[in-house]
Amino acid sequence: MAPSQNVSTTLARRIEESAGKHSVFEDAARTLPIPVCSEVLGQDGRIRPVVFKESVTILKCKDPEGAEKTFSRTMARHRNIVLEAVPSETLHQVTGKRVAVLFSGGPAAGGHNVLAGLKAVLGKNNTLLGIRKGPKGLLNGDVFEISTEGIKKVFNTGGFDFLGTDRTKIKTPEQFRKVKDTVLKNKLDGLIIVGGDDSNTNAAFIAEYLEREGVRCSVIGIPKTIDGDMAVGDLLPISFGYDTATKVFSELVGNLNQDAASAVKYYHFVKLMGRTASKITLEVALQTKPAIALISEEIAEKNLSLDQLVDHIVRIIAERRLKGINHGVVLVPEGLIEFIPEMGRLIKELNKVLAEYETDIKDLPTLKNKQEFIYPRLSPQSAQLMASLPEEIEETLILDRDDHGNVKVSQIETEKLLIEKIRYKASEMKRHTDRYFGAGEGKIPATPDQIEKFKSYTLSTQSHFLGYEGRSGKPTAFDAAFTFLLGLTAGSLVLDERTGYMAAVTDFDKGGRILGLPLAGLIQCEERKGKEELVIEKSLVRTDSPSFQFYAQHRDHWAREDLFSSPGPIQHWGPTARQLPILVSLDQGYEDFTTFNLGAECHVEFE
Amino acid sequence: MAPSQNVSTTLARRIEESAGKHSVFEDAARTLPIPVCSEVLGQDGRIRPVVFKESVTILKCKDPEGAEKTFSRTMARHRNIVLEAVPSETLHQVTGKRVAVLFSGGPAAGGHNVLAGLKAVLGKNNTLLGIRKGPKGLLNGDVFEISTEGIKKVFNTGGFDFLGTDRTKIKTPEQFRKVKDTVLKNKLDGLIIVGGDDSNTNAAFIAEYLEREGVRCSVIGIPKTIDGDMAVGDLLPISFGYDTATKVFSELVGNLNQDAASAVKYYHFVKLMGRTASKITLEVALQTKPAIALISEEIAEKNLSLDQLVDHIVRIIAERRLKGINHGVVLVPEGLIEFIPEMGRLIKELNKVLAEYETDIKDLPTLKNKQEFIYPRLSPQSAQLMASLPEEIEETLILDRDDHGNVKVSQIETEKLLIEKIRYKASEMKRHTDRYFGAGEGKIPATPDQIEKFKSYTLSTQSHFLGYEGRSGKPTAFDAAFTFLLGLTAGSLVLDERTGYMAAVTDFDKGGRILGLPLAGLIQCEERKGKEELVIEKSLVRTDSPSFQFYAQHRDHWAREDLFSSPGPIQHWGPTARQLPILVSLDQGYEDFTTFNLGAECHVEFE
Repeated sequence: MAPSQNVSTTLARRIEESAGKHSVFEDAARTLPIPVCSEVLGQDGRIRPVVFKESVTILKCKDPEGAEKTFSRTMARHRNIVLEAVPSETLHQVTGKRVAVLFSGGPAAGGHNVLAGLKAVLGKNNTLLGIRKGPKGLLNGDVFEISTEGIKKVFNTGGFDFLGTDRTKIKTPEQFRKVKDTVLKNKLDGLIIVGGDDSNTNAAFIAEYLEREGVRCSVIGIPKTIDGDMAVGDLLPISFGYDTATKVFSELVGNLNQDAASAVKYYHFVKLMGRTASKITLEVALQTKPAIALISEEIAEKNLSLDQLVDHIVRIIAERRLKGINHGVVLVPEGLIEFIPEMGRLIKELNKVLAEYETDIKDLPTLKNKQEFIYPRLSPQSAQLMASLPEEIEETLILDRDDHGNVKVSQIETEKLLIEKIRYKASEMKRHTDRYFGAGEGKIPATPDQIEKFKSYTLSTQSHFLGYEGRSGKPTAFDAAFTFLLGLTAGSLVLDERTGYMAAVTDFDKGGRILGLPLAGLIQCEERKGKEELVIEKSLVRTDSPSFQFYAQHRDHWAREDLFSSPGPIQHWGPTARQLPILVSLDQGYEDFTTFNLGAECHVEFE
Repeated sequence: MAPSQNVSTTLARRIEESAGKHSVFEDAARTLPIPVCSEVLGQDGRIRPVVFKESVTILKCKDPEGAEKTFSRTMARHRNIVLEAVPSETLHQVTGKRVAVLFSGGPAAGGHNVLAGLKAVLGKNNTLLGIRKGPKGLLNGDVFEISTEGIKKVFNTGGFDFLGTDRTKIKTPEQFRKVKDTVLKNKLDGLIIVGGDDSNTNAAFIAEYLEREGVRCSVIGIPKTIDGDMAVGDLLPISFGYDTATKVFSELVGNLNQDAASAVKYYHFVKLMGRTASKITLEVALQTKPAIALISEEIAEKNLSLDQLVDHIVRIIAERRLKGINHGVVLVPEGLIEFIPEMGRLIKELNKVLAEYETDIKDLPTLKNKQEFIYPRLSPQSAQLMASLPEEIEETLILDRDDHGNVKVSQIETEKLLIEKIRYKASEMKRHTDRYFGAGEGKIPATPDQIEKFKSYTLSTQSHFLGYEGRSGKPTAFDAAFTFLLGLTAGSLVLDERTGYMAAVTDFDKGGRILGLPLAGLIQCEERKGKEELVIEKSLVRTDSPSFQFYAQHRDHWAREDLFSSPGPIQHWGPTARQLPILVSLDQGYEDFTTFNLGAECHVEFE
């Protein structure tokens, strides 16, 4: 069989054409329509910038003095008042503005539609510029003009690859001067920073700095992060990228639920990305109803020890086992470890010792030597806890350091730590069934038959980490529309000559409401790595929130009856394509999560 | 904020109703129509069983003597002749037949639609029985009647959870007697075994055994495996589950491609499930065009050493680096390690030593002691190779054993082994640029500037394993239709009183052609773990196949220009929902992979 003869030229061409982001799917996705709020549609049906007026809402600074001092110029202008968009009949006549945009931090789905929204609202009479490789590119002046062709190519596609991104923090006076240089050199009227809490904090500082320097340039932030922790109550229900990431993870966790029930022997431990908030885990749990989902914020609030947490997990596994269910999925938020109060204390103490005796510890040749040096310098509680951890975890705690010399918390394989602890505990329960089963407080009710059966049980586990896979998928219908609107909003704020705001959209169930949130009003003083810093507060899971309460009320029933479900792969066509995050729907008091309303669909034409 | 007041009762009900496999997606998927070949549609538009006639195709046994001796009874009947389906006007009148079905081995998408196809073709006048937990359930007689309601519930859903599965192999005379007991006790006229090469081999043996015992029961196999290695040329282009699994993996690898290009710093090493064949990796590579995809079969054929393989990978990474591309995705098939000839030899030697000195080695207390014992007993080449492996890999090789005492190849973290070796090599290239760059044979052409830049390069890597996530997703449109047809085929073979066949469908581009393949004709003699066994041959990647050739011809161009693409999440509605595996389309000489034709769509009604 000579292969070259066998391959049809049509087929070969089809495959060749799909290279370079032209899969059948990507090409079809580029033609999907986008819902757009009525405010941004002119009477001719074309996209128009909106103008902003002051709303009745004022942001309450948590640290008014600190913020007022640091952000005196921008705050003097915006007075923490939230702006609200109204249709404008004149702003589209503005010409000659030059606006640059950059991505900062980890990718999130929808970044390219932010660019598309900006391009659409600026139109052909203003110029959209892209800054390559994030804040580093801003410092280096790595700027280029974004063409209509470029936008058409990336519209509705995933990732940040059209610009690239990086994690440089702009902090030093020299860095600020470089930013000014780039702004002046490129004659920028606007600078759009797409990023999470840190990047939006940066945007607030840059806005203030440029005001002080007398440089007229609107600095606008756009809330991005798959973690969902860049959110502001009902003014900004969620950041972009969260919906897509949680839906990618929910597809996979749903598949694993189904797989666990099919193979009937495994517990899959799935660590989910999200260094701080457990919002991703909570949404995936609401979507998939797994056996167990750990919520860091709850564990911290209940002050659970590592052992208590392990007991809790093993108890659920044992109760399911007694009902004949030997499989399931356990969701573990990536940031868990620091939310277990005693682990948090251990890490803090370790950081202190590692900082104080940096060179001493470095000089000690073996891990054992380092341990001998460190143990006496910890509190007895922390020393005991560290000694009880598996070898590899201890090694990570002592040897792996980040650039600031701190313990590299993200390197700790929490899911493997839990698996090891759970195995020990389960085998202890098998050896001492009388302590754990039968009548009596805290014991698990079980018949002698059930207990005998439990003894023959072996816990088989698999561990997974889901993260990178969810950051750069094609945006969901919601994220695609949300980011396009955020781009329109940010562009309009620039044309309206506002600075120091974050673009926001809310009321996802009522046609969408476009807002500008004064960045300085979101900033508070926080201790970070031992130093006081002014930063935007991360929005964590609140245990009194409707979403957490709903999950807490249902989880036992779902786990006991193994009522998992599979939300399936993200659909971009058909009856299930327009879903919202369940968490957002619950917390915002919406009537439904299976649909959203951000205005009428339109086929955007870029000119 | 009192949450219970805030949550709309409509929303709460919506979420509650989605528990227990009733996500919005799952409920919508149950209503999707299924394409059905014209042969199985009666004039009234209802599904009818087909009847079989002998085709002109005869399977050529690779080991005719061995097979003829072992399968004399079944072969006397079917003479290795492939059966072809034709419409039947009478077979639907057959009543009172009792047919049982089981799943064997790892889950694969579409198993539930096999049940649906069986139920539809048997109709209300025959009985479909399910066997719980795979072959073990067959031995234990764990049988129940499958109701129409049960089928409606699982139609078009993923996983094997309606029956469960396991990996018990039926080999001993006692086990065969137990199978007979279950068949007689349940008065089975048919036994359908859904599984891979081993399970279908088992089906052949059971068919032969029951014939010898004078038990009239049709034993029919159904080809399942996500690995795609249960395939028979143009008679059975692929097994079911392959399309769904490769599309789930391609979604994720596509996202990682996009993410790598966005974060512009990582190489993602992705190990893909598939213990033997690299067919999954080849399909994912054709779908996503990553920087590198290793194909085990090619590496074995070229007799590459581990070092040569590492050199090959580092060279591509370095060449991309010189062009300013510092990121990408590397696909690693799970079974790679045994296909590197020197590694295969090492593992073989180790297995021999571990078997010969089992107790000696067990008695030695430390890993070091065991190493001291084992090294002198290996060939110098294997000893040198083992000594060059990272510590943890050596530990896995020596300490982790499967039930037969063999090295647990699946435990070897190949992707991490490669990462470590590649890091060493890349840093060596930085120290000795003169050896690797410049003019001269085998050197990489580079300017002094480029070489300086290369020296500042650090290789950042992330490793992933994709497997379980792809086994139990909702079947793609293709797998849903294919499995439904396989169920119809298997049910028809039973009603037509055939035994020892595998249900097959081919001509996915021409309306589908239904076949019965004589199992004994697929069986050959193979050495497995040191013993000769009669088994169905695994279908590996052939380096002279159109699919491999096409990939080999395009991969350098795709890698050099970073022409990756993202095939996106599996769509079940809309313009991209009906795709075939590219590998199948190439190898079968189809005109297109973006659509398939397995007949007209119909909404199946179960009665």
